[in-house]
Amino acid sequence: MTLIFKSNADSWADWRQHLNEAAPDLACRDWDDPGDDDAVEFALVWKPPFGELRRRFKNLKAIFSLGAGVDHLLGDRDLPVGVPIVRMVEPELTRGMTEYVVLHVLRYHRAVPTLEDQQRRGVWHALATPTAPKRRVGIMGLGVIGQDSLRVLSALGFALSGWSRTAKSIPGVICHHGPEGLSAFLAEVEILVCLLPYTIDTDNILNRDVFDRLPRGAYLINAGRGGLQDEDDILAALESGQLAGATLDVFREEPLPAGHAFWDHPNVTITPHNAGTAQAWSGAGEVVANIRRIRDGAAPQNIADPAAGY
Amino acid sequence: MTLIFKSNADSWADWRQHLNEAAPDLACRDWDDPGDDDAVEFALVWKPPFGELRRRFKNLKAIFSLGAGVDHLLGDRDLPVGVPIVRMVEPELTRGMTEYVVLHVLRYHRAVPTLEDQQRRGVWHALATPTAPKRRVGIMGLGVIGQDSLRVLSALGFALSGWSRTAKSIPGVICHHGPEGLSAFLAEVEILVCLLPYTIDTDNILNRDVFDRLPRGAYLINAGRGGLQDEDDILAALESGQLAGATLDVFREEPLPAGHAFWDHPNVTITPHNAGTAQAWSGAGEVVANIRRIRDGAAPQNIADPAAGY
Repeated sequence: MTLIFKSNADSWADWRQHLNEAAPDLACRDWDDPGDDDAVEFALVWKPPFGELRRRFKNLKAIFSLGAGVDHLLGDRDLPVGVPIVRMVEPELTRGMTEYVVLHVLRYHRAVPTLEDQQRRGVWHALATPTAPKRRVGIMGLGVIGQDSLRVLSALGFALSGWSRTAKSIPGVICHHGPEGLSAFLAEVEILVCLLPYTIDTDNILNRDVFDRLPRGAYLINAGRGGLQDEDDILAALESGQLAGATLDVFREEPLPAGHAFWDHPNVTITPHNAGTAQAWSGAGEVVANIRRIRDGAAPQNIADPAAGY
Repeated sequence: MTLIFKSNADSWADWRQHLNEAAPDLACRDWDDPGDDDAVEFALVWKPPFGELRRRFKNLKAIFSLGAGVDHLLGDRDLPVGVPIVRMVEPELTRGMTEYVVLHVLRYHRAVPTLEDQQRRGVWHALATPTAPKRRVGIMGLGVIGQDSLRVLSALGFALSGWSRTAKSIPGVICHHGPEGLSAFLAEVEILVCLLPYTIDTDNILNRDVFDRLPRGAYLINAGRGGLQDEDDILAALESGQLAGATLDVFREEPLPAGHAFWDHPNVTITPHNAGTAQAWSGAGEVVANIRRIRDGAAPQNIADPAAGY
């Protein structure tokens, strides 16, 4: 029973240690280490080269994504046929995303960029900001991460709205869904947080048409995927003042290329795709639990649906 | 039945409107407006000039502080004798303080200053930060505001410690108290939040001796009072690296004087004493409820204890 690991963003040493502790009978091998590829039954991967999983590993029973999103796998037109793809759902990845969302919502809510500018200019002006019940935050994407972010934003007292592909009901949150629910959702949202998966339906969903339906001077936080955002439209909306600021963890091209207009933009905050990361000390147990389910003949939890795209 | 209002930090128009709505029978007058001072039974004030309350208003029944702290009143050696001083305890002031604490704890926890510096330099480096359970936050001052901050920090999953004058017990929080409990409290705290009242016992409590007992590279957030901090010791601790950063909402002299070393310090974040502000739409009802208690012959809630100093 062998697992193969590949990532340019996660620590192989950490994952090996914690997988070994959780399953001493599981042999773990890095993608580039020599070994018997036919013995590999499980892959734990982030952005493997397209076609390689199918070409190298003939006996795969499951492919585990190291990220919550599986677009990096479903984009591969040459995946092994009939092998389930498992999304990473583990408490510390969720927690990291919630930390990021709450931090950056509060940062805009409390006008931190303006206060930082005041400090640079040596200005003491006790800017008054409304408290959370007077501020509506809207979350696009109401899966595990969106709902956990809403839990903490609710503890802070924010007015909350949500939007998702299918209808959801969350206590204390005004929920909208589908293309027909988008305008009503956007009309009230001062701080828009995008946590959607990247699919054929959500490609470029953060575009001028969406920004124009927000109240003037709204803020955008995108911690989903770069493919969700039209970057020229973001720049235009910042230029016109329709958007007052954008905090972006993801980009169409990553790393964000040198010279991109976002780098120096006074109203854009860039983070290097580190909003949330699966933690080996917590996630290894989730992976091993799913491996045991498969060995027992059961289906793993959190299987992606290729038809839905996530 | 008349209330007199004085503040250079709160809106008289807002308070007048919401006090009138909550108590149409309460006449409200600004400190500087002409009127019968002998009719004044209640004062709602922030930093009134020392001696003036006693000199002008002979029939005061209670003095309401517009801030949570009452040091701006108790510092007056010439206060009216036997008139209760009431601390401002209202949900939106508490909420604003909690927002501030959670924002700035997350800002250090997620290395925002380092990431902002990376953006300025055009560097893409996916800095790894531990998730909240691996980070211990310590709060000095476990009253209403401290406990509400702990509630949200707990929802985020932080490891939590608290320190207070008298013994407290809070589920999920390691509580220490008194001078004898300070070293054990400080030894584990990576992010130290000070919410103490300013009293003769807490004057200059944030000093070199305290910083030296923190783990090296800890962060300080002071949203209590400026008198709690030794500002030269903060600068020295930042210089030596014992403190990695300080976020200060309060200062020995406010507004912070031009030319103070904090203004330009790369590791100091200044906010202009706006962490939490009583909101008229929420606080007026609390003031009026206490006025009704007094008119009914009962004691008001949240009376300050001059002996304890808060």
